[in-house]
Amino acid sequence: MLESGLYLIPNQLSDVPLERVLPAHNIEVVRGIRHFVVESLRSGRRFIKKCDRSIDIDSLTLNELNEHTDLKDTTALEALLEPIGRGEPVGVISDAGCPAVADPGADLVAIAQRKGYKVFPLVGPSSILMSLMASGFNGQSFAFLGYLPVDAHARQARLKEMIRRIEREHQTQIFIEAPYRNNQLIADLATHQPPQLRLCVASDITGENQCIVTRTLGAWKQARYDYHKIPTIFLLYQ
Amino acid sequence: MLESGLYLIPNQLSDVPLERVLPAHNIEVVRGIRHFVVESLRSGRRFIKKCDRSIDIDSLTLNELNEHTDLKDTTALEALLEPIGRGEPVGVISDAGCPAVADPGADLVAIAQRKGYKVFPLVGPSSILMSLMASGFNGQSFAFLGYLPVDAHARQARLKEMIRRIEREHQTQIFIEAPYRNNQLIADLATHQPPQLRLCVASDITGENQCIVTRTLGAWKQARYDYHKIPTIFLLYQ
Repeated sequence: MLESGLYLIPNQLSDVPLERVLPAHNIEVVRGIRHFVVESLRSGRRFIKKCDRSIDIDSLTLNELNEHTDLKDTTALEALLEPIGRGEPVGVISDAGCPAVADPGADLVAIAQRKGYKVFPLVGPSSILMSLMASGFNGQSFAFLGYLPVDAHARQARLKEMIRRIEREHQTQIFIEAPYRNNQLIADLATHQPPQLRLCVASDITGENQCIVTRTLGAWKQARYDYHKIPTIFLLYQ
Repeated sequence: MLESGLYLIPNQLSDVPLERVLPAHNIEVVRGIRHFVVESLRSGRRFIKKCDRSIDIDSLTLNELNEHTDLKDTTALEALLEPIGRGEPVGVISDAGCPAVADPGADLVAIAQRKGYKVFPLVGPSSILMSLMASGFNGQSFAFLGYLPVDAHARQARLKEMIRRIEREHQTQIFIEAPYRNNQLIADLATHQPPQLRLCVASDITGENQCIVTRTLGAWKQARYDYHKIPTIFLLYQ
């Protein structure tokens, strides 16, 4: 029997055997839960089935929590946690990676914390953490900033502040871009930012075509690459 | 046969069965490596033995890389990677958690990247990531800052800047403290910082006494707690 509380269950980043990226313990946790909050029903069902084909999905409660959810409706969010009040576990599953990190779920966790419920984060793949490990950049101080602003002015201001924090605070700067703009982003950085800065481009993490490469912006300018529409994360450092 | 390259192998954060916190794949990787760079020989040996008791430790090469290593001696660091030049894999193992993140190893990874070697980060427990997941704080923008400065003036300045980034950028601020000062840190924050700010205290992550609690500083001021000498990570947000 699982202890009552909110279990944050990482999903795979790419379609690989689960034992490659998840501890066996996570599968046991999934087997013990009957109430799930999922980013999408389709991915949630697929993940649960991949954990254990013998699980009867139709006997489970799956509720969606994603960008379409009205996060101001705390009553609706609290209802998702209601099984915990009865002493049962509730599981949160993202479409990819770790719930509540660059992904929905944080608001639900905040309510669980406010109610004094136990929260159990499980181990799993995170493109932020894994790219940082493999970049060779400072892991004693780093920031993840989410998506770069689309607006040209806001983007320039953001990049300027990032470079300031790299130089003054030696803080690794981690960010993402809409996947169809990956190549353009690299070309822009290589053309307009200091050539001695290093850029790590980490794509298809844990996947068959995983590629994590650190080069100076000067070297990126000369390099041949194609990350078009491939899930990619970027890291900048001196 | 493992592909040649640098494998970043996370270690457990607390003494639990490995299948609780590591994918089975990691054990296979350890079995396939004969050259390791470890934070300490003792912990490195213990971890490898825990992965597979049948591994003959004495037949392996274990080199230390830690705070005593002269990181400016790039020749010595390059020598640690020499097996990769011969087509063999090299593994990096921290005493706890993920290599190169709030831990030694980043300099070695940087050299591997410069030489064009492949770098493979493996999945494992990270107190930074797991505490962020369970805090209920913003996971779309966050920064890890390492240890708070010891000097009172520098510490005040750091805290002021952290709070500025929470308020203006909605960026979760994550930091650590020497474990024997944990209680004092919480008391100081609760006394001197805005009472409506929320502090998440995450201790003994993945361990038997794991406890991850988010409260306002006002509530921490009233709370009873004892984190003396317990591995703990702190997160601050509005």
